[in-house]
Amino acid sequence: MKKTDKYTVVIQGWDLMSYFSDTRDVCWFLEPELANAIKALHGAIGNAVTEERYIVVGTGSSQLCQAALFALSSLSEVQPVNIVAAVPFYSTYVEEASYLQSNLYKWEGDARTFDKKGPYIEMVTSPNNPEGTMREPVVNRTEGGKVIHDFAYYWPHYTPITRREDHDLMLFTFSKITGHAGSRIGWALVKDIEVAKKMVHYLTINSIGVSKESQTRATTILNELTKTCRNKSESFFEYGYEKMKSRWERLREIVESGDTFTLPNYPQAFCNFFGKTISTTPAFAWLGCKEERDLGSLLKEKNVLARGGDRFGSDKKYVRISMLSRDHDFHVFLQRLATIKDLK
Amino acid sequence: MKKTDKYTVVIQGWDLMSYFSDTRDVCWFLEPELANAIKALHGAIGNAVTEERYIVVGTGSSQLCQAALFALSSLSEVQPVNIVAAVPFYSTYVEEASYLQSNLYKWEGDARTFDKKGPYIEMVTSPNNPEGTMREPVVNRTEGGKVIHDFAYYWPHYTPITRREDHDLMLFTFSKITGHAGSRIGWALVKDIEVAKKMVHYLTINSIGVSKESQTRATTILNELTKTCRNKSESFFEYGYEKMKSRWERLREIVESGDTFTLPNYPQAFCNFFGKTISTTPAFAWLGCKEERDLGSLLKEKNVLARGGDRFGSDKKYVRISMLSRDHDFHVFLQRLATIKDLK
Repeated sequence: MKKTDKYTVVIQGWDLMSYFSDTRDVCWFLEPELANAIKALHGAIGNAVTEERYIVVGTGSSQLCQAALFALSSLSEVQPVNIVAAVPFYSTYVEEASYLQSNLYKWEGDARTFDKKGPYIEMVTSPNNPEGTMREPVVNRTEGGKVIHDFAYYWPHYTPITRREDHDLMLFTFSKITGHAGSRIGWALVKDIEVAKKMVHYLTINSIGVSKESQTRATTILNELTKTCRNKSESFFEYGYEKMKSRWERLREIVESGDTFTLPNYPQAFCNFFGKTISTTPAFAWLGCKEERDLGSLLKEKNVLARGGDRFGSDKKYVRISMLSRDHDFHVFLQRLATIKDLK
Repeated sequence: MKKTDKYTVVIQGWDLMSYFSDTRDVCWFLEPELANAIKALHGAIGNAVTEERYIVVGTGSSQLCQAALFALSSLSEVQPVNIVAAVPFYSTYVEEASYLQSNLYKWEGDARTFDKKGPYIEMVTSPNNPEGTMREPVVNRTEGGKVIHDFAYYWPHYTPITRREDHDLMLFTFSKITGHAGSRIGWALVKDIEVAKKMVHYLTINSIGVSKESQTRATTILNELTKTCRNKSESFFEYGYEKMKSRWERLREIVESGDTFTLPNYPQAFCNFFGKTISTTPAFAWLGCKEERDLGSLLKEKNVLARGGDRFGSDKKYVRISMLSRDHDFHVFLQRLATIKDLK
């Protein structure tokens, strides 16, 4: 983020005091300016349909994911509803679906091997966390299934924008666009008003809405992203893509110069936003080990911290490495990786 | 809130980006400046002990209440843990304890009639929401019980500060001090580190922490409250108490001039903060009807909206009226009430 004052917010003492933002909106605690900023950005990037959608704002997309689980399972005739995701899946889904021991829903693990009867919700993260591939639902049933599409990383600095996504329940988060994780702002685009209402019901009980200060700041920053996105020298997405591309090239160079590690290969694709064919440069590297070793432990010995593949329902020979660290940290990571790339 | 720029915050684009505030703190997403501001304000007002306490910040005290239910019930050997509160109780507790159909805890209603075996958590709100009385736990058992003290309204503009509260788990909220409900900032003062850790675990899964923008703004405003609290012309609490006192006098005048309504009587008491004997001037009026009538419906006919007593586990002859509305709204409320005070 460049340090320009266009991204600065000023909030006066008497401002933003109420619980309410717009009592006529299904999501009564959503600031109308944020709703407009979200629609404008999706319109400019072309990554998601916002027409005929209810926007539900959350304290990050984690809270929204739980609001969605609550909404879809509350509306199911049979409970608990099975929650599944194809391996490797975002490790936090397991905790989100399990920690409260709810009778509404139940974590059932890998969507590919899911064979229980009854209603289910499939979490589809695309590009996927941890390994950056584009995903589709894998449970193949004609009825009883709902899908939550988590599009946290479906932005042009991570992956080519190949279509405007158009699904029943899509999640996005401010933190994975610009890195403003501290603001805890996420949003859902929801087709069915009953689902949107139930999500709002969850958010009302869970936290009586979402910080207005964060909503105001997200509005300012998202609007600035939209305004500058076609200006090559000012566009955050141009900057972000070049940064990610350079990091991936440096990482691949080290991995390919040795005989220890593996990385996924991604197809190049035409990005509708950039108007050209680009690489996939995910927010995480799904680093693998050619031999059957516990890669997380091996890296830890070399002072590289990464989340082990087993946390994602996969194998310990993989780890998830953040590609979004600060320049200095990323540089040190590469240096340390280089010292072990020929380890036998 | 007076419109002075001491209460204004300016947040630059690159600031407050991380999930983390202080990785050494049990509550790693709590801004250290907010922790200091909270301690300073409690110190200046004298309403709660903060020494040897862990501070856990939440997205309002609603989220913290749920974090506390999770923490205390997770640490219980037997589950579900019974959740109780003495009638009349804050209506939202019922929803908070029930909506997710958790196997960890179960809403059991009135604490006074609670006679089930097994562990329990008693919610003690003091001053109480809805009727403003000072409360103590009522379940009288030697073991198996935990108490969550909700001190949302234990501030000198609502009630005389008679002692520094000193309990295991105390909840406070920014919204009920100055009215900044939109910020969604609450905090818990927690004695036991294991309970604090479990609460942080809940908040990590539920929303990966709490808006930094809101924390920053709350810090600025709480610090200003502390700084000015001994200056009679600038003190928010002096202003707030005079405002509440005047509203209560006007309300009592109308109620006492007719023969329809009742209001609780509160003892005067010496307030350690103001250094003099003052009245109790709660945030809500627990308006009753002398006859057995559905007071909520009666008022609704006269365009007065109030939450019915049945929502608080009590009788429909009572309603909860907010004493915190804007001047104009409060004035209109009194006018409408005056037209029905002699209704037969």
